[in-house]
Amino acid sequence: MMTLVVKALLFDVQGTATDFHSTVCGEAGRLGAGRHPGVDWADVVRRWRAGYFTALEAARSRSSGWVSVHSVYRDALEAVLHECGITGFSDAEREELTLAWQRLVPWRDVVPGLTRLKSAFTLATLSNADVSAVINISKLAGLPWDAIFAAEMAGVFKPDPAIYRMAATYLGLDPADIMMVASHKYDIRAAARLGFRTAFVARPLEFGVDGEADVAYSDEFDVNASDFLDLAGQLGC
Amino acid sequence: MMTLVVKALLFDVQGTATDFHSTVCGEAGRLGAGRHPGVDWADVVRRWRAGYFTALEAARSRSSGWVSVHSVYRDALEAVLHECGITGFSDAEREELTLAWQRLVPWRDVVPGLTRLKSAFTLATLSNADVSAVINISKLAGLPWDAIFAAEMAGVFKPDPAIYRMAATYLGLDPADIMMVASHKYDIRAAARLGFRTAFVARPLEFGVDGEADVAYSDEFDVNASDFLDLAGQLGC
Repeated sequence: MMTLVVKALLFDVQGTATDFHSTVCGEAGRLGAGRHPGVDWADVVRRWRAGYFTALEAARSRSSGWVSVHSVYRDALEAVLHECGITGFSDAEREELTLAWQRLVPWRDVVPGLTRLKSAFTLATLSNADVSAVINISKLAGLPWDAIFAAEMAGVFKPDPAIYRMAATYLGLDPADIMMVASHKYDIRAAARLGFRTAFVARPLEFGVDGEADVAYSDEFDVNASDFLDLAGQLGC
Repeated sequence: MMTLVVKALLFDVQGTATDFHSTVCGEAGRLGAGRHPGVDWADVVRRWRAGYFTALEAARSRSSGWVSVHSVYRDALEAVLHECGITGFSDAEREELTLAWQRLVPWRDVVPGLTRLKSAFTLATLSNADVSAVINISKLAGLPWDAIFAAEMAGVFKPDPAIYRMAATYLGLDPADIMMVASHKYDIRAAARLGFRTAFVARPLEFGVDGEADVAYSDEFDVNASDFLDLAGQLGC
Protein backbone atom coordinates (compact mmCIF):
# COMPACT_ATOMS: atom_id res chain seq x y z
CA MET A 1 0.00 0.00 0.00
CA MET A 2 1.28 3.44 -0.98
CA THR A 3 1.66 6.24 1.51
CA LEU A 4 1.11 8.54 -1.45
CA VAL A 5 -1.78 10.91 -0.87
CA VAL A 6 -3.79 12.18 -3.81
CA LYS A 7 -7.34 13.49 -3.95
CA ALA A 8 -8.39 12.75 -7.50
CA LEU A 9 -7.62 10.25 -10.24
CA LEU A 10 -7.83 11.00 -13.96
CA PHE A 11 -8.30 8.07 -16.33
CA ASP A 12 -7.58 7.50 -19.95
CA VAL A 13 -10.57 5.71 -21.47
CA GLN A 14 -9.74 4.15 -24.86
CA GLY A 15 -7.37 1.28 -24.07
CA THR A 16 -6.87 1.90 -20.34
CA ALA A 17 -10.47 1.56 -19.12
CA THR A 18 -11.97 -0.11 -22.17
CA ASP A 19 -11.03 -2.90 -24.55
CA PHE A 20 -11.45 -1.16 -27.89
CA HIS A 21 -9.70 -3.93 -29.77
CA SER A 22 -12.15 -6.73 -29.10
CA THR A 23 -15.16 -4.39 -29.15
CA VAL A 24 -14.34 -2.95 -32.56
CA CYS A 25 -13.07 -6.26 -33.99
CA GLY A 26 -16.31 -7.92 -32.91
CA GLU A 27 -18.42 -5.23 -34.54
CA ALA A 28 -16.36 -5.29 -37.76
CA GLY A 29 -16.60 -9.08 -37.94
CA ARG A 30 -20.36 -8.97 -37.35
CA LEU A 31 -20.94 -6.31 -40.02
CA GLY A 32 -18.58 -7.95 -42.50
CA ALA A 33 -19.71 -11.52 -41.86
CA GLY A 34 -20.17 -13.59 -45.01
CA ARG A 35 -18.84 -10.93 -47.33
CA HIS A 36 -15.20 -10.71 -46.30
CA PRO A 37 -14.35 -14.16 -44.90
CA GLY A 38 -10.61 -13.81 -45.39
CA VAL A 39 -10.14 -10.47 -43.66
CA ASP A 40 -7.89 -10.22 -40.59
CA TRP A 41 -10.09 -7.84 -38.59
CA ALA A 42 -7.51 -7.57 -35.82
CA ASP A 43 -5.08 -6.15 -38.36
CA VAL A 44 -7.76 -3.83 -39.77
CA VAL A 45 -8.53 -2.45 -36.30
CA ARG A 46 -4.84 -1.98 -35.47
CA ARG A 47 -4.40 -0.04 -38.72
CA TRP A 48 -7.55 1.97 -37.96
CA ARG A 49 -6.30 2.94 -34.50
CA ALA A 50 -2.90 3.85 -36.00
CA GLY A 51 -4.67 6.02 -38.59
CA TYR A 52 -6.53 7.76 -35.77
CA PHE A 53 -3.25 8.58 -34.01
CA THR A 54 -1.73 9.94 -37.21
CA ALA A 55 -4.80 12.14 -37.74
CA LEU A 56 -4.65 13.46 -34.15
CA GLU A 57 -1.02 14.39 -34.60
CA ALA A 58 -1.86 16.16 -37.83
CA ALA A 59 -4.68 17.99 -36.04
CA ARG A 60 -2.26 19.10 -33.32
CA SER A 61 0.01 20.73 -35.87
CA ARG A 62 -2.87 22.65 -37.45
CA SER A 63 -4.45 25.65 -35.81
CA SER A 64 -7.75 25.36 -37.64
CA GLY A 65 -11.04 24.59 -35.86
CA TRP A 66 -11.90 21.59 -33.74
CA VAL A 67 -12.53 18.25 -35.41
CA SER A 68 -14.71 15.69 -33.68
CA VAL A 69 -12.98 12.43 -32.94
CA HIS A 70 -15.95 10.65 -34.46
CA SER A 71 -15.14 12.30 -37.79
CA VAL A 72 -11.45 11.45 -37.33
CA TYR A 73 -12.34 7.77 -36.90
CA ARG A 74 -14.81 7.97 -39.79
CA ASP A 75 -12.18 9.43 -42.16
CA ALA A 76 -9.51 7.01 -40.95
CA LEU A 77 -11.88 4.10 -41.65
CA GLU A 78 -12.21 5.18 -45.28
CA ALA A 79 -8.45 5.07 -45.64
CA VAL A 80 -7.98 1.70 -43.96
CA LEU A 81 -10.81 0.02 -45.90
CA HIS A 82 -9.28 1.33 -49.13
CA GLU A 83 -5.82 0.16 -48.06
CA CYS A 84 -7.10 -3.33 -47.21
CA GLY A 85 -9.25 -3.61 -50.34
CA ILE A 86 -12.48 -3.95 -48.36
CA THR A 87 -15.26 -2.55 -50.50
CA GLY A 88 -18.41 -4.23 -49.23
CA PHE A 89 -19.46 -1.77 -46.51
CA SER A 90 -22.21 0.72 -47.31
CA ASP A 91 -22.04 4.27 -45.98
CA ALA A 92 -24.57 3.37 -43.29
CA GLU A 93 -22.45 0.38 -42.25
CA ARG A 94 -19.31 2.52 -42.15
CA GLU A 95 -21.13 4.94 -39.88
CA GLU A 96 -22.41 2.10 -37.70
CA LEU A 97 -18.94 0.58 -37.47
CA THR A 98 -17.46 3.94 -36.47
CA LEU A 99 -20.03 4.18 -33.68
CA ALA A 100 -18.53 1.02 -32.18
CA TRP A 101 -15.92 3.41 -30.68
CA GLN A 102 -18.78 4.84 -28.58
CA ARG A 103 -19.81 1.42 -27.23
CA LEU A 104 -16.44 0.22 -25.97
CA VAL A 105 -16.63 -2.53 -23.38
CA PRO A 106 -14.65 -2.03 -20.17
CA TRP A 107 -11.97 -4.47 -19.07
CA ARG A 108 -13.38 -6.86 -16.47
CA ASP A 109 -11.61 -5.18 -13.52
CA VAL A 110 -12.76 -1.65 -14.35
CA VAL A 111 -16.23 -1.37 -12.79
CA PRO A 112 -15.28 -3.13 -9.52
CA GLY A 113 -11.97 -1.25 -9.40
CA LEU A 114 -13.54 2.17 -9.97
CA THR A 115 -16.27 1.37 -7.44
CA ARG A 116 -13.61 0.74 -4.78
CA LEU A 117 -11.59 3.81 -5.77
CA LYS A 118 -14.67 6.06 -5.77
CA SER A 119 -15.03 5.74 -2.01
CA ALA A 120 -11.71 7.48 -1.48
CA PHE A 121 -11.06 9.65 -4.54
CA THR A 122 -12.74 11.90 -7.07
CA LEU A 123 -12.69 9.97 -10.35
CA ALA A 124 -12.76 11.67 -13.74
CA THR A 125 -11.98 10.75 -17.28
CA LEU A 126 -9.32 12.58 -19.27
CA SER A 127 -9.91 11.25 -22.75
CA ASN A 128 -9.15 12.28 -26.29
CA ALA A 129 -12.53 10.86 -27.34
CA ASP A 130 -15.46 13.25 -27.84
CA VAL A 131 -17.40 14.19 -24.70
CA SER A 132 -20.51 12.48 -26.11
CA ALA A 133 -18.53 9.32 -26.85
CA VAL A 134 -17.17 9.18 -23.29
CA ILE A 135 -20.69 9.72 -21.94
CA ASN A 136 -22.10 6.98 -24.19
CA ILE A 137 -19.37 4.50 -23.28
CA SER A 138 -19.68 5.27 -19.58
CA LYS A 139 -23.46 5.10 -19.45
CA LEU A 140 -23.59 1.81 -21.33
CA ALA A 141 -20.90 0.23 -19.17
CA GLY A 142 -21.95 1.82 -15.87
CA LEU A 143 -18.59 3.49 -15.25
CA PRO A 144 -19.04 5.50 -12.04
CA TRP A 145 -17.11 8.70 -12.85
CA ASP A 146 -17.62 11.83 -10.77
CA ALA A 147 -16.91 13.94 -13.86
CA ILE A 148 -16.09 13.62 -17.52
CA PHE A 149 -13.26 15.68 -18.94
CA ALA A 150 -12.22 15.33 -22.55
CA ALA A 151 -9.99 16.91 -25.17
CA GLU A 152 -12.99 18.60 -26.75
CA MET A 153 -13.28 20.76 -23.60
CA ALA A 154 -9.67 21.90 -23.86
CA GLY A 155 -9.62 22.34 -27.63
CA VAL A 156 -6.42 20.27 -27.77
CA PHE A 157 -5.60 16.58 -27.58
CA LYS A 158 -3.42 14.75 -25.09
CA PRO A 159 -0.45 15.00 -24.62
CA ASP A 160 -0.81 18.79 -24.97
CA PRO A 161 -0.10 20.31 -21.52
CA ALA A 162 -3.25 22.47 -21.73
CA ILE A 163 -5.58 19.49 -21.32
CA TYR A 164 -3.94 18.29 -18.10
CA ARG A 165 -3.95 21.85 -16.74
CA MET A 166 -7.63 22.18 -17.63
CA ALA A 167 -8.44 19.09 -15.56
CA ALA A 168 -6.51 20.44 -12.55
CA THR A 169 -8.34 23.78 -12.82
CA TYR A 170 -11.75 22.12 -13.05
CA LEU A 171 -10.96 19.86 -10.10
CA GLY A 172 -9.73 22.87 -8.12
CA LEU A 173 -6.61 20.92 -7.16
CA ASP A 174 -2.85 21.18 -7.55
CA PRO A 175 -1.31 18.68 -9.99
CA ALA A 176 0.49 17.02 -7.06
CA ASP A 177 -2.92 16.06 -5.64
CA ILE A 178 -3.99 14.37 -8.88
CA MET A 179 -2.90 11.04 -10.37
CA MET A 180 -3.12 10.38 -14.12
CA VAL A 181 -3.88 6.72 -14.84
CA ALA A 182 -3.17 5.25 -18.26
CA SER A 183 -1.80 2.26 -20.12
CA HIS A 184 0.01 4.66 -22.47
CA LYS A 185 3.32 5.98 -21.26
CA TYR A 186 3.28 9.12 -23.45
CA ASP A 187 0.10 10.15 -21.61
CA ILE A 188 1.31 9.73 -18.03
CA ARG A 189 4.76 11.10 -18.90
CA ALA A 190 3.13 14.30 -20.19
CA ALA A 191 1.17 14.59 -16.93
CA ALA A 192 4.29 13.89 -14.85
CA ARG A 193 6.16 16.76 -16.53
CA LEU A 194 3.46 19.09 -15.13
CA GLY A 195 3.73 17.73 -11.59
CA PHE A 196 0.90 15.18 -11.65
CA ARG A 197 1.29 11.79 -9.98
CA THR A 198 1.21 8.84 -12.33
CA ALA A 199 -0.11 5.30 -12.46
CA PHE A 200 0.79 2.94 -15.27
CA VAL A 201 -1.72 0.15 -15.84
CA ALA A 202 -0.58 -2.75 -18.01
CA ARG A 203 -3.08 -3.76 -20.68
CA PRO A 204 -1.34 -6.63 -22.49
CA LEU A 205 -4.35 -7.25 -24.76
CA GLU A 206 -4.85 -3.61 -25.79
CA PHE A 207 -4.06 -4.47 -29.41
CA GLY A 208 -5.31 -8.06 -29.27
CA VAL A 209 -3.43 -11.31 -28.67
CA ASP A 210 -0.94 -10.62 -31.45
CA GLY A 211 -0.61 -6.94 -30.62
CA GLU A 212 2.51 -5.50 -29.10
CA ALA A 213 1.38 -3.49 -26.11
CA ASP A 214 4.10 -1.95 -23.94
CA VAL A 215 3.48 -3.50 -20.52
CA ALA A 216 6.89 -2.93 -18.94
CA TYR A 217 6.69 -1.47 -15.45
CA SER A 218 8.97 1.46 -14.72
CA ASP A 219 10.24 3.19 -11.57
CA GLU A 220 9.56 6.54 -13.21
CA PHE A 221 5.85 6.10 -12.36
CA ASP A 222 4.44 6.42 -8.86
CA VAL A 223 2.38 3.26 -9.30
CA ASN A 224 2.63 0.31 -11.69
CA ALA A 225 -0.49 -1.82 -11.64
CA SER A 226 -1.76 -4.93 -13.40
CA ASP A 227 -5.34 -3.61 -13.45
CA PHE A 228 -7.75 -1.25 -11.63
CA LEU A 229 -8.23 -3.67 -8.71
CA ASP A 230 -4.48 -3.80 -8.21
CA LEU A 231 -4.43 0.02 -8.43
CA ALA A 232 -7.18 0.24 -5.80
CA GLY A 233 -5.26 -2.10 -3.53
CA GLN A 234 -2.00 -0.15 -3.92
CA LEU A 235 -3.87 3.09 -3.13
CA GLY A 236 -5.35 1.60 0.04
CA CYS A 237 -8.93 1.08 -1.14
CA MET B 1 -47.43 11.11 -19.16
CA MET B 2 -45.83 13.19 -21.92
CA THR B 3 -45.40 11.91 -25.42
CA LEU B 4 -42.48 14.31 -25.65
CA VAL B 5 -39.28 12.58 -26.66
CA VAL B 6 -35.96 13.93 -25.45
CA LYS B 7 -32.64 12.16 -25.02
CA ALA B 8 -30.94 14.20 -22.33
CA LEU B 9 -31.87 16.37 -19.38
CA LEU B 10 -29.81 19.31 -18.12
CA PHE B 11 -30.26 20.38 -14.51
CA ASP B 12 -29.68 23.55 -12.64
CA VAL B 13 -28.05 22.68 -9.30
CA GLN B 14 -28.22 25.57 -6.81
CA GLY B 15 -31.89 25.83 -5.86
CA THR B 16 -33.33 23.32 -8.33
CA ALA B 17 -31.51 20.17 -7.21
CA THR B 18 -30.24 21.39 -3.85
CA ASP B 19 -31.62 23.32 -0.90
CA PHE B 20 -28.98 26.01 -0.52
CA HIS B 21 -31.10 28.04 1.84
CA SER B 22 -31.32 25.59 4.72
CA THR B 23 -27.80 24.24 4.10
CA VAL B 24 -26.15 27.65 4.25
CA CYS B 25 -28.45 28.96 7.03
CA GLY B 26 -27.61 25.91 9.12
CA GLU B 27 -23.90 26.41 8.62
CA ALA B 28 -24.09 30.15 9.37
CA GLY B 29 -26.10 29.49 12.51
CA ARG B 30 -23.65 26.83 13.64
CA LEU B 31 -20.60 29.04 13.08
CA GLY B 32 -22.26 32.13 14.59
CA ALA B 33 -23.85 30.33 17.55
CA GLY B 34 -23.49 32.18 20.83
CA ARG B 35 -21.94 35.26 19.31
CA HIS B 36 -24.75 36.65 17.20
CA PRO B 37 -27.95 35.45 18.91
CA GLY B 38 -30.19 38.11 17.37
CA VAL B 39 -29.20 37.59 13.74
CA ASP B 40 -31.84 36.54 11.19
CA TRP B 41 -29.67 34.09 9.25
CA ALA B 42 -32.41 33.47 6.69
CA ASP B 43 -32.25 37.15 5.81
CA VAL B 44 -28.45 37.09 5.72
CA VAL B 45 -28.46 34.13 3.30
CA ARG B 46 -31.08 35.75 1.06
CA ARG B 47 -28.94 38.90 0.89
CA TRP B 48 -25.87 36.79 0.24
CA ARG B 49 -27.53 34.97 -2.66
CA ALA B 50 -28.76 38.32 -4.04
CA GLY B 51 -25.21 39.69 -3.80
CA TYR B 52 -23.97 36.67 -5.76
CA PHE B 53 -26.50 37.38 -8.55
CA THR B 54 -25.48 41.03 -8.72
CA ALA B 55 -21.82 40.01 -8.96
CA LEU B 56 -22.55 37.49 -11.75
CA GLU B 57 -24.36 40.17 -13.73
CA ALA B 58 -21.43 42.52 -13.25
CA ALA B 59 -19.09 39.74 -14.38
CA ARG B 60 -21.19 39.23 -17.53
CA SER B 61 -20.77 42.86 -18.52
CA ARG B 62 -16.99 42.73 -18.12
CA SER B 63 -14.73 41.03 -20.60
CA SER B 64 -11.88 40.46 -18.18
CA GLY B 65 -10.75 36.98 -17.11
CA TRP B 66 -12.81 34.29 -15.44
CA VAL B 67 -13.69 34.66 -11.76
CA SER B 68 -14.38 31.56 -9.71
CA VAL B 69 -17.84 31.43 -8.20
CA HIS B 70 -16.20 30.56 -4.89
CA SER B 71 -14.46 33.95 -4.93
CA VAL B 72 -17.74 35.62 -5.96
CA TYR B 73 -19.48 34.12 -2.91
CA ARG B 74 -16.48 34.97 -0.70
CA ASP B 75 -16.53 38.64 -1.79
CA ALA B 76 -20.32 38.86 -1.53
CA LEU B 77 -20.11 37.49 2.02
CA GLU B 78 -17.81 40.34 3.06
CA ALA B 79 -20.35 42.84 1.79
CA VAL B 80 -23.35 41.21 3.45
CA LEU B 81 -21.62 40.78 6.80
CA HIS B 82 -20.61 44.44 6.72
CA GLU B 83 -24.15 45.46 5.74
CA CYS B 84 -25.68 43.42 8.58
CA GLY B 85 -23.10 44.57 11.15
CA ILE B 86 -21.83 41.03 11.77
CA THR B 87 -18.20 41.32 12.80
CA GLY B 88 -17.51 38.16 14.78
CA PHE B 89 -16.39 35.83 11.99
CA SER B 90 -12.65 35.25 11.51
CA ASP B 91 -11.19 34.92 8.02
CA ALA B 92 -11.03 31.15 8.47
CA GLU B 93 -14.69 31.07 9.48
CA ARG B 94 -15.67 33.21 6.49
CA GLU B 95 -13.83 30.76 4.23
CA GLU B 96 -15.50 27.81 5.95
CA LEU B 97 -18.92 29.41 5.63
CA THR B 98 -18.35 30.08 1.92
CA LEU B 99 -17.50 26.40 1.45
CA ALA B 100 -21.04 25.57 2.62
CA TRP B 101 -22.03 26.35 -1.00
CA GLN B 102 -19.99 23.26 -1.98
CA ARG B 103 -21.84 20.98 0.46
CA LEU B 104 -25.41 21.79 -0.53
CA VAL B 105 -27.95 19.16 0.49
CA PRO B 106 -30.30 17.88 -2.23
CA TRP B 107 -34.07 18.19 -1.89
CA ARG B 108 -35.53 14.89 -0.68
CA ASP B 109 -36.94 13.91 -4.11
CA VAL B 110 -33.70 14.51 -6.04
CA VAL B 111 -31.73 11.26 -5.61
CA PRO B 112 -34.74 8.94 -6.16
CA GLY B 113 -35.99 11.15 -9.00
CA LEU B 114 -32.63 11.25 -10.80
CA THR B 115 -32.20 7.51 -10.28
CA ARG B 116 -35.49 6.88 -12.11
CA LEU B 117 -34.69 9.40 -14.84
CA LYS B 118 -31.21 7.97 -15.39
CA SER B 119 -32.63 4.73 -16.78
CA ALA B 120 -34.13 6.60 -19.74
CA PHE B 121 -32.08 9.77 -20.24
CA THR B 122 -28.57 11.14 -20.14
CA LEU B 123 -28.44 13.41 -17.09
CA ALA B 124 -26.04 16.32 -16.80
CA THR B 125 -25.72 19.43 -14.70
CA LEU B 126 -25.71 22.88 -16.25
CA SER B 127 -24.71 25.03 -13.33
CA ASN B 128 -23.22 28.44 -12.76
CA ALA B 129 -21.28 27.02 -9.81
CA ASP B 130 -17.62 26.10 -10.28
CA VAL B 131 -16.95 22.63 -11.73
CA SER B 132 -15.22 21.61 -8.48
CA ALA B 133 -18.20 22.81 -6.43
CA VAL B 134 -20.64 20.79 -8.54
CA ILE B 135 -18.39 17.74 -8.21
CA ASN B 136 -18.13 18.20 -4.42
CA ILE B 137 -21.89 18.68 -4.00
CA SER B 138 -22.69 15.71 -6.23
CA LYS B 139 -20.17 13.34 -4.66
CA LEU B 140 -21.30 14.16 -1.11
CA ALA B 141 -24.98 13.78 -1.99
CA GLY B 142 -24.61 10.84 -4.38
CA LEU B 143 -26.21 12.65 -7.33
CA PRO B 144 -25.97 10.19 -10.25
CA TRP B 145 -25.10 12.53 -13.15
CA ASP B 146 -23.71 11.15 -16.38
CA ALA B 147 -21.75 14.36 -16.87
CA ILE B 148 -21.05 17.67 -15.20
CA PHE B 149 -21.25 20.82 -17.29
CA ALA B 150 -20.75 24.22 -15.71
CA ALA B 151 -20.34 27.87 -16.59
CA GLU B 152 -16.61 27.62 -15.98
CA MET B 153 -16.36 25.36 -19.04
CA ALA B 154 -18.10 27.90 -21.26
CA GLY B 155 -16.39 30.97 -19.84
CA VAL B 156 -19.79 32.62 -19.42
CA PHE B 157 -22.63 32.31 -16.94
CA LYS B 158 -26.26 31.32 -17.55
CA PRO B 159 -28.36 32.74 -19.14
CA ASP B 160 -25.72 33.49 -21.82
CA PRO B 161 -26.68 31.46 -24.94
CA ALA B 162 -23.12 30.14 -25.27
CA ILE B 163 -23.42 27.92 -22.21
CA TYR B 164 -26.55 26.14 -23.44
CA ARG B 165 -24.97 25.70 -26.87
CA MET B 166 -21.85 24.26 -25.23
CA ALA B 167 -23.95 21.63 -23.48
CA ALA B 168 -25.68 20.64 -26.73
CA THR B 169 -22.32 20.34 -28.49
CA TYR B 170 -20.82 18.21 -25.72
CA LEU B 171 -23.89 15.97 -25.67
CA GLY B 172 -23.73 15.66 -29.47
CA LEU B 173 -27.47 16.42 -29.63
CA ASP B 174 -29.79 19.00 -31.14
CA PRO B 175 -31.38 21.41 -28.62
CA ALA B 176 -34.80 19.87 -29.42
CA ASP B 177 -33.53 16.57 -27.98
CA ILE B 178 -32.51 18.19 -24.69
CA MET B 179 -34.65 19.42 -21.81
CA MET B 180 -33.41 22.12 -19.44
CA VAL B 181 -34.76 21.60 -15.92
CA ALA B 182 -34.78 24.46 -13.42
CA SER B 183 -36.78 26.21 -10.72
CA HIS B 184 -35.68 29.55 -12.23
CA LYS B 185 -37.68 30.79 -15.18
CA TYR B 186 -34.93 33.03 -16.57
CA ASP B 187 -32.81 29.89 -16.98
CA ILE B 188 -35.35 27.73 -18.84
CA ARG B 189 -36.59 30.69 -20.88
CA ALA B 190 -33.04 31.29 -22.12
CA ALA B 191 -32.81 27.62 -23.11
CA ALA B 192 -36.24 27.71 -24.79
CA ARG B 193 -35.15 30.64 -27.00
CA LEU B 194 -32.44 28.34 -28.41
CA GLY B 195 -34.83 25.48 -29.12
CA PHE B 196 -34.35 23.40 -25.97
CA ARG B 197 -37.29 21.72 -24.26
CA THR B 198 -38.05 23.02 -20.79
CA ALA B 199 -39.19 21.72 -17.42
CA PHE B 200 -40.10 24.06 -14.61
CA VAL B 201 -39.77 22.53 -11.15
CA ALA B 202 -41.44 24.41 -8.30
CA ARG B 203 -39.24 24.84 -5.24
CA PRO B 204 -41.43 26.81 -2.81
CA LEU B 205 -38.79 26.70 -0.04
CA GLU B 206 -35.88 27.85 -2.22
CA PHE B 207 -35.51 31.01 -0.14
CA GLY B 208 -36.82 29.54 3.11
CA VAL B 209 -40.31 29.60 4.62
CA ASP B 210 -40.52 33.39 4.42
CA GLY B 211 -38.90 33.58 1.00
CA GLU B 212 -40.84 34.47 -2.09
CA ALA B 213 -40.05 31.81 -4.64
CA ASP B 214 -41.88 31.98 -7.97
CA VAL B 215 -43.72 28.66 -8.12
CA ALA B 216 -46.40 29.53 -10.69
CA TYR B 217 -46.77 26.91 -13.41
CA SER B 218 -46.94 28.21 -16.96
CA ASP B 219 -48.02 26.78 -20.31
CA GLU B 220 -44.94 28.25 -21.90
CA PHE B 221 -42.93 25.32 -20.48
CA ASP B 222 -43.13 21.77 -21.83
CA VAL B 223 -43.40 20.37 -18.32
CA ASN B 224 -44.37 21.89 -14.96
CA ALA B 225 -43.49 19.62 -12.05
CA SER B 226 -43.73 19.70 -8.28
CA ASP B 227 -40.42 17.85 -7.86
CA PHE B 228 -38.06 15.40 -9.61
CA LEU B 229 -40.32 12.40 -8.91
CA ASP B 230 -43.22 14.21 -10.55
CA LEU B 231 -40.90 15.07 -13.45
CA ALA B 232 -39.90 11.40 -13.79
CA GLY B 233 -43.54 10.35 -13.79
CA GLN B 234 -44.47 12.91 -16.44
CA LEU B 235 -41.56 11.76 -18.61
CA GLY B 236 -42.68 8.15 -18.35
CA CYS B 237 -40.00 6.83 -15.98
